[in-house]
Amino acid sequence: MDQNHLRELLEQVRHGAVDVDAALARLRHMPFEDLGFAKVDHHRAIRVGVPEVVFGKGKAPEHVLAIADRLNERGGNVLITRTEARAAELLQARFPEGEYFPLSGAFRIWKDRSIHGKGKIAILCAGTSDIPVAEEAQVTAEVMGNEIVSIADIGVAGIHRLFNNRDKFVDAKVCVVVAGMEGALPSAVGGLVPCPVVAVPTSIGYGASFHGLAALLGMLNSCASNVTVVNIDNGFGGGYVAGLINRV
Amino acid sequence: MDQNHLRELLEQVRHGAVDVDAALARLRHMPFEDLGFAKVDHHRAIRVGVPEVVFGKGKAPEHVLAIADRLNERGGNVLITRTEARAAELLQARFPEGEYFPLSGAFRIWKDRSIHGKGKIAILCAGTSDIPVAEEAQVTAEVMGNEIVSIADIGVAGIHRLFNNRDKFVDAKVCVVVAGMEGALPSAVGGLVPCPVVAVPTSIGYGASFHGLAALLGMLNSCASNVTVVNIDNGFGGGYVAGLINRV
Amino acid sequence: MDQNHLRELLEQVRHGAVDVDAALARLRHMPFEDLGFAKVDHHRAIRVGVPEVVFGKGKAPEHVLAIADRLNERGGNVLITRTEARAAELLQARFPEGEYFPLSGAFRIWKDRSIHGKGKIAILCAGTSDIPVAEEAQVTAEVMGNEIVSIADIGVAGIHRLFNNRDKFVDAKVCVVVAGMEGALPSAVGGLVPCPVVAVPTSIGYGASFHGLAALLGMLNSCASNVTVVNIDNGFGGGYVAGLINRV
Amino acid sequence: MDQNHLRELLEQVRHGAVDVDAALARLRHMPFEDLGFAKVDHHRAIRVGVPEVVFGKGKAPEHVLAIADRLNERGGNVLITRTEARAAELLQARFPEGEYFPLSGAFRIWKDRSIHGKGKIAILCAGTSDIPVAEEAQVTAEVMGNEIVSIADIGVAGIHRLFNNRDKFVDAKVCVVVAGMEGALPSAVGGLVPCPVVAVPTSIGYGASFHGLAALLGMLNSCASNVTVVNIDNGFGGGYVAGLINRV
Amino acid sequence: MDQNHLRELLEQVRHGAVDVDAALARLRHMPFEDLGFAKVDHHRAIRVGVPEVVFGKGKAPEHVLAIADRLNERGGNVLITRTEARAAELLQARFPEGEYFPLSGAFRIWKDRSIHGKGKIAILCAGTSDIPVAEEAQVTAEVMGNEIVSIADIGVAGIHRLFNNRDKFVDAKVCVVVAGMEGALPSAVGGLVPCPVVAVPTSIGYGASFHGLAALLGMLNSCASNVTVVNIDNGFGGGYVAGLINRV
Amino acid sequence: MDQNHLRELLEQVRHGAVDVDAALARLRHMPFEDLGFAKVDHHRAIRVGVPEVVFGKGKAPEHVLAIADRLNERGGNVLITRTEARAAELLQARFPEGEYFPLSGAFRIWKDRSIHGKGKIAILCAGTSDIPVAEEAQVTAEVMGNEIVSIADIGVAGIHRLFNNRDKFVDAKVCVVVAGMEGALPSAVGGLVPCPVVAVPTSIGYGASFHGLAALLGMLNSCASNVTVVNIDNGFGGGYVAGLINRV
Amino acid sequence: MDQNHLRELLEQVRHGAVDVDAALARLRHMPFEDLGFAKVDHHRAIRVGVPEVVFGKGKAPEHVLAIADRLNERGGNVLITRTEARAAELLQARFPEGEYFPLSGAFRIWKDRSIHGKGKIAILCAGTSDIPVAEEAQVTAEVMGNEIVSIADIGVAGIHRLFNNRDKFVDAKVCVVVAGMEGALPSAVGGLVPCPVVAVPTSIGYGASFHGLAALLGMLNSCASNVTVVNIDNGFGGGYVAGLINRV
Amino acid sequence: MDQNHLRELLEQVRHGAVDVDAALARLRHMPFEDLGFAKVDHHRAIRVGVPEVVFGKGKAPEHVLAIADRLNERGGNVLITRTEARAAELLQARFPEGEYFPLSGAFRIWKDRSIHGKGKIAILCAGTSDIPVAEEAQVTAEVMGNEIVSIADIGVAGIHRLFNNRDKFVDAKVCVVVAGMEGALPSAVGGLVPCPVVAVPTSIGYGASFHGLAALLGMLNSCASNVTVVNIDNGFGGGYVAGLINRV
Repeated sequence: MDQNHLRELLEQVRHGAVDVDAALARLRHMPFEDLGFAKVDHHRAIRVGVPEVVFGKGKAPEHVLAIADRLNERGGNVLITRTEARAAELLQARFPEGEYFPLSGAFRIWKDRSIHGKGKIAILCAGTSDIPVAEEAQVTAEVMGNEIVSIADIGVAGIHRLFNNRDKFVDAKVCVVVAGMEGALPSAVGGLVPCPVVAVPTSIGYGASFHGLAALLGMLNSCASNVTVVNIDNGFGGGYVAGLINRV
Repeated sequence: MDQNHLRELLEQVRHGAVDVDAALARLRHMPFEDLGFAKVDHHRAIRVGVPEVVFGKGKAPEHVLAIADRLNERGGNVLITRTEARAAELLQARFPEGEYFPLSGAFRIWKDRSIHGKGKIAILCAGTSDIPVAEEAQVTAEVMGNEIVSIADIGVAGIHRLFNNRDKFVDAKVCVVVAGMEGALPSAVGGLVPCPVVAVPTSIGYGASFHGLAALLGMLNSCASNVTVVNIDNGFGGGYVAGLINRV
Repeated sequence: MDQNHLRELLEQVRHGAVDVDAALARLRHMPFEDLGFAKVDHHRAIRVGVPEVVFGKGKAPEHVLAIADRLNERGGNVLITRTEARAAELLQARFPEGEYFPLSGAFRIWKDRSIHGKGKIAILCAGTSDIPVAEEAQVTAEVMGNEIVSIADIGVAGIHRLFNNRDKFVDAKVCVVVAGMEGALPSAVGGLVPCPVVAVPTSIGYGASFHGLAALLGMLNSCASNVTVVNIDNGFGGGYVAGLINRV
Repeated sequence: MDQNHLRELLEQVRHGAVDVDAALARLRHMPFEDLGFAKVDHHRAIRVGVPEVVFGKGKAPEHVLAIADRLNERGGNVLITRTEARAAELLQARFPEGEYFPLSGAFRIWKDRSIHGKGKIAILCAGTSDIPVAEEAQVTAEVMGNEIVSIADIGVAGIHRLFNNRDKFVDAKVCVVVAGMEGALPSAVGGLVPCPVVAVPTSIGYGASFHGLAALLGMLNSCASNVTVVNIDNGFGGGYVAGLINRV
Repeated sequence: MDQNHLRELLEQVRHGAVDVDAALARLRHMPFEDLGFAKVDHHRAIRVGVPEVVFGKGKAPEHVLAIADRLNERGGNVLITRTEARAAELLQARFPEGEYFPLSGAFRIWKDRSIHGKGKIAILCAGTSDIPVAEEAQVTAEVMGNEIVSIADIGVAGIHRLFNNRDKFVDAKVCVVVAGMEGALPSAVGGLVPCPVVAVPTSIGYGASFHGLAALLGMLNSCASNVTVVNIDNGFGGGYVAGLINRV
Repeated sequence: MDQNHLRELLEQVRHGAVDVDAALARLRHMPFEDLGFAKVDHHRAIRVGVPEVVFGKGKAPEHVLAIADRLNERGGNVLITRTEARAAELLQARFPEGEYFPLSGAFRIWKDRSIHGKGKIAILCAGTSDIPVAEEAQVTAEVMGNEIVSIADIGVAGIHRLFNNRDKFVDAKVCVVVAGMEGALPSAVGGLVPCPVVAVPTSIGYGASFHGLAALLGMLNSCASNVTVVNIDNGFGGGYVAGLINRV
Repeated sequence: MDQNHLRELLEQVRHGAVDVDAALARLRHMPFEDLGFAKVDHHRAIRVGVPEVVFGKGKAPEHVLAIADRLNERGGNVLITRTEARAAELLQARFPEGEYFPLSGAFRIWKDRSIHGKGKIAILCAGTSDIPVAEEAQVTAEVMGNEIVSIADIGVAGIHRLFNNRDKFVDAKVCVVVAGMEGALPSAVGGLVPCPVVAVPTSIGYGASFHGLAALLGMLNSCASNVTVVNIDNGFGGGYVAGLINRV
Repeated sequence: MDQNHLRELLEQVRHGAVDVDAALARLRHMPFEDLGFAKVDHHRAIRVGVPEVVFGKGKAPEHVLAIADRLNERGGNVLITRTEARAAELLQARFPEGEYFPLSGAFRIWKDRSIHGKGKIAILCAGTSDIPVAEEAQVTAEVMGNEIVSIADIGVAGIHRLFNNRDKFVDAKVCVVVAGMEGALPSAVGGLVPCPVVAVPTSIGYGASFHGLAALLGMLNSCASNVTVVNIDNGFGGGYVAGLINRV
């Protein structure tokens, strides 16, 4: 359509219906979307297999439902993160086929369960309190078409548990490591695997954890070179980037 | 060798030269490296194509030279980051075939220039002052066997320059985006590309940049979901993770 | 009135009703407002077209209503920001002609809709969650007699949307740019327009946004030289300064 | 030139030398600067009367000189801020007609002294230690074609000095207020003038000033609604925005 | 009583009822309070005219009441700060002669209204929102036997109001200055008076006020040399120290 | 059991039922716990006399009860810290022999009251508001088999009370010192005793206490060399480490 | 003089030489200093016995000397704080009668050694490293005409030294307490004396002292109600306020 | 001596040479040191085997030498930490039998090499850059009469090295764990050993390590319950507390 619009203008120039100066002026004001830039988003959706994800927190329940309706009609997998209680009820009533994850507040509707990732993604978390964030990462990476292996409660203070589970994640294509408190697990995992590690600090802790700041700083200063970091409690971001890496 | 050590013990058990209890006791005290764990590192080196990188800053020049000698003998590519003035002189005298990058202080010796990455890595930086950090990222990713496209000085305050250069990086497998001050470039790039973006905040700026804190926080809060972050000024980390992603 | 008070004293001096020493003494104790300083405020009100604005948050509902009554009697436009639920009800009952803006909590009574600004003010916001703060800016600038163009949801991660809307704001006399999370939009806008940009950071975000600190620091470190910054969530301040600039 | 480039293409389309599909393809890859976007900068330069300003700090002296040569050839006023000792010497030798301001390190070459501002800009600073930052603001605003009134050492602890000088700045179109330590002067000035106030915090102070953080926070929390803020020690930014406001 | 205890021991030594070694041992284990140190507190109470003040916040209502009973029996003035709703009710029922101050939560019972201070204490506050903290300072200083002059809503953005009220506080022996937001009032007052100024930052503000941090830092960096600072919202401390200074 | 597993494998090697290569392969994949590492925890439990402690906060009441059941069956002392209201009710109903400490939320079931510590542990706290944290430390150290002496409300502003109580703690093997606000008590205690001092900062305070940060920093900077620090409000950690030290 | 100026105007009004409107206009523009406000400063100088003190740091040596010359001519005591090496040499050469204090960099010239304070001021410091700041406080308070008792190295970790010296400061009219690291000394002193305590945090310490922040926060959170605080390392401010208090 | 002083007074009371009132007065003013408190320090020296340690940094070289002379004469082991270059030269010249440790700047003179500790102290450090701080800990613990096992470069990113060395430290009575960057090693060690772990954060790192803050916060939030923390870079404190624990 946009291409056509531009083509039409050029045809008019060719046939003399529009002279060069007028064409120049119109070209300068033609929006970029018409020139094809907005297609980036569409391409991404097609390649990645996940439509725009909705961040449910703070949105009115009816608003969330309306968005979910619209996304559902497009025919791709639907993911709504951090839904609040009332919105979750509405979603479950409208989409009985949907999955609701109460720990993280994620709601997911499957349309296409094909696998797009090249290998498996390992999602590890340090303590049981970190599980909601890890769940958000897992739900996200799955809906993008990835095979996940998920291992909970293997914090560095019980480092032998990490070793005991090593076979489960050492051959992953990418690891998502979720940890609060001192946030040390990504460094330990990073030293055991040859793949990229996406570290997700959580706000679990109290006192000098300063709502996740301690874990965040720890991960940014990791002595393992294969570690990168996303925002505190950003399980979605961790799962999303892992999903992208698994398709490079 | 380590495997042999373990095999020898088992052979002794088999032939009755060591009884089971004695074997049990020795097994429990056998270092894990002997059991094969340390091979992780070796495997990584082989797969990734880069031996352990040396962080030159703060090391005595003679010490740096000695390490470089040892690494050089192993036969793989050698990378020393953040060499200081005197160490750089010594390295250049000893390895005339080496490349010295004065902006970032990197020193590199090529042994194997084969390409291991699946696609190209784009390294973008916001301002000319960010170039040393971007250079460190590029030198690192190259020595791991990647093809790089590097674009400097395309900060968000001149956003048309970013658009003008879009064709150069839109098909990269991974982008490394280096920026100081407000650190906004990774968000803008992240919205234009479908691939993972590794953001590297720099300490460029003054006053309320607080030595890179402003850029770091900006990147961690990116509204583009494909952005992950490494430490302030950590060009090496940015290039290294990009190199890993490009091989997944 | 105050002028008259002073004039009266001088007349008394002239006619000998008050001698010089007594006049001296009274002059020294005459409040400065009587000497004309307070007129600064009055002058400003007349020029700017907006009486003293009331900050409603934390005030008792009856108190807010009483202040609104008094302001309403003065005959100028009335603006109350951040009214709370009960106060909003009282205001709507008393002033059915008033406008209530539930997102931002602003309440406005028009007396004079004449335009005082020289050109239009563009108010841009990065995400839909930033709209309440942008609304406060718009309500404020409008009540001061300005024409506004308002554009929402054009964050830097979808930079093409910014470009597509460029024609709408490029000729503004001043831009107010509202953004949370990484706060990058003011830099991008600042690079596209030749006019002053008033940046308003918002507390939208979580984790390392630290309640708007990330956005604030980002804006203070903007690489666009035409950007100045007001406090976090201070939509009123953003709209007010823009209104002043539009009359210089 | 760029316009010509585009015109030429359209002429070729008109005359059939290039067909529509080929034109389409070339248009899509034509950099935006060629399509006229970069003219924003040029337009700004023309309107504002100041070419791109060079930030001298951290640049090699010869590099600064080369840039100055190029800017000088363009024929507009030249401004280099924060030149360092050696660069200042080179500039003074090459441009004997230039002005060097040792306190702030600014170097300025006049080509056009015409006044573009609508009224005067007042630049006030709190203490004598803040003068270098105020000087940078003044040099910047002057080179953009503004009339300046500059008042030093009128901090709030000697508030009567502020009052005594009130006549000098009360009719300014915009005030730039520079202050370190507690950064209270912008609030006091903001209460006295009806115009916009651009506040520039400085790093003057010690201990709990935390390198200007105290002044910055003070200004962001100003109870005067007409105050906006730029980065710590950013005299250039303060002067530049004031220059823009004075032309709205 | 304690004195008597010690005296008794010495009498026993004198009369041989206790020998020296036994006396030595008992002296070494005799608590210091018995040796007169605790009298510091008693002396202070007598001199200052206020018994130990009770911080009501977080204490059980019945507990507050019980303490108030005990203090009331001692016969001096009673002050309970920051009482919570239920505790306030209990106190008002038990002590109908008491004064309750709902803004600050202070509860006061007068026994002795004599004046101990040498001059008057001025308590100034910047905005109406700061009044609760100023009230706590006033209630405290009054109960210690001081004459107070209290002036509200004279923030620096309306500096003429400060001047207009100058005669009321310029001859105070000590000023308590309460301010939130940018916390600039103590500097302005400090420049107008020759006496000590006790600055009390409040948590009034939002965004970059960081719960009073901005005001606190501003006051610590005051360019007026006669300013000292107490904790955020510590009206009691401000009034208490002012009361002590007024008796030196 | 795990030992048996390994022994069995070695027996099979010995008898030729498994050949060396197969044994090698199985050994490499045998989890470390099976090799005896997990026994570290068991050994610790036996030596220290306390089973794994449960952190009750944020756990579902039924979950807490289930864990308590399991721990109770193991036969050692049971400690659950920071139980919330409903969980405490359930625990009290199920374990009428248990002790509930409402201030700190600790719940404790005794199985073995034998003393394991070498000397007594002194637990001191600065103010009455710090008692809940001190209580958690005491409950913890007691359940590990230690004799405790506990002294409350001896803050440094009443330093004579510290002296008066000195005999009670000067011969302790280790002191736990709990303090909020300025956190100065550990330094004062550290100067009076020759033993290690474990300092526990609390979040008691307001304003510039920043939720315990002031106390934490004070303790980390203690001029007494025998002071170490645990996290803010971490009474459990303080008591636990003291219990370990008392057995060295 | 200023009074005369105003009187003259009123006389002219009385005699009809100036009409009322003209008088009104002139009155409005008459600077406040002429109306007597600036006399505040002069009065303070006379009462306090110290002329404006010069902050020597960062000033050119010749500039410092010139200021000293001017102050010296006025005839009052002269105090220059934080002189740097070269300025100190110049001052010593010009004023051989002056006293130079190398630890704090203070330089003092006595003109009038009369005592103005009502009692003695005690200046206590915690460690030997804090002595330069304490010295600055002492030099300042002395030059204002106060009797000082100075006690060094009585930090809380050796609390018996504080007790041993108690007789020396318990009867002071005001105490200045200087401490770095954990900054606990003011609380301990505040509990022992009935007078106001001015606390001066110092930047002595390392690591988590964060350049005096730990000491500053500790002092602001003092549990002793008679403590107020000045800026980090602000010995001058501590001595100055103490001097003012000692004259109330 | 002090005891004698008190005894003498009591004898005088007994014999009537001093009456009770006079004795009372003298007792109240008798310094506490005379009553035996100061002996605490002496006792500690005797028990612990180390005289007062001197912190050399910032002290004049001659001053350091003089202190060393005095300490040396007392006959115990002498330890001076953080000597600077010139002081180290003087010390080495004066005490050729002394040991100088250039990495940490410690200087030590042995008088008594007897072992006082009950078991060995393990000192572990994460990276080679942390060795100077670990060295300070070791030198300190040794001079107190402890047997040390020291293991370097076993950071969590190479966690197998930690396991391989486990036998060396698992039976220590106390561990000192030194780490910079993310500071994760104490948690990993804490999970492997049953003894107390004293964690020493170092300032090693860059960017978001914020001079050791990241490591400090990580350690304070350790999920291993046996970890306590000392100040950043405080190797002395780590070694000292470990030495005390090893004697409990």
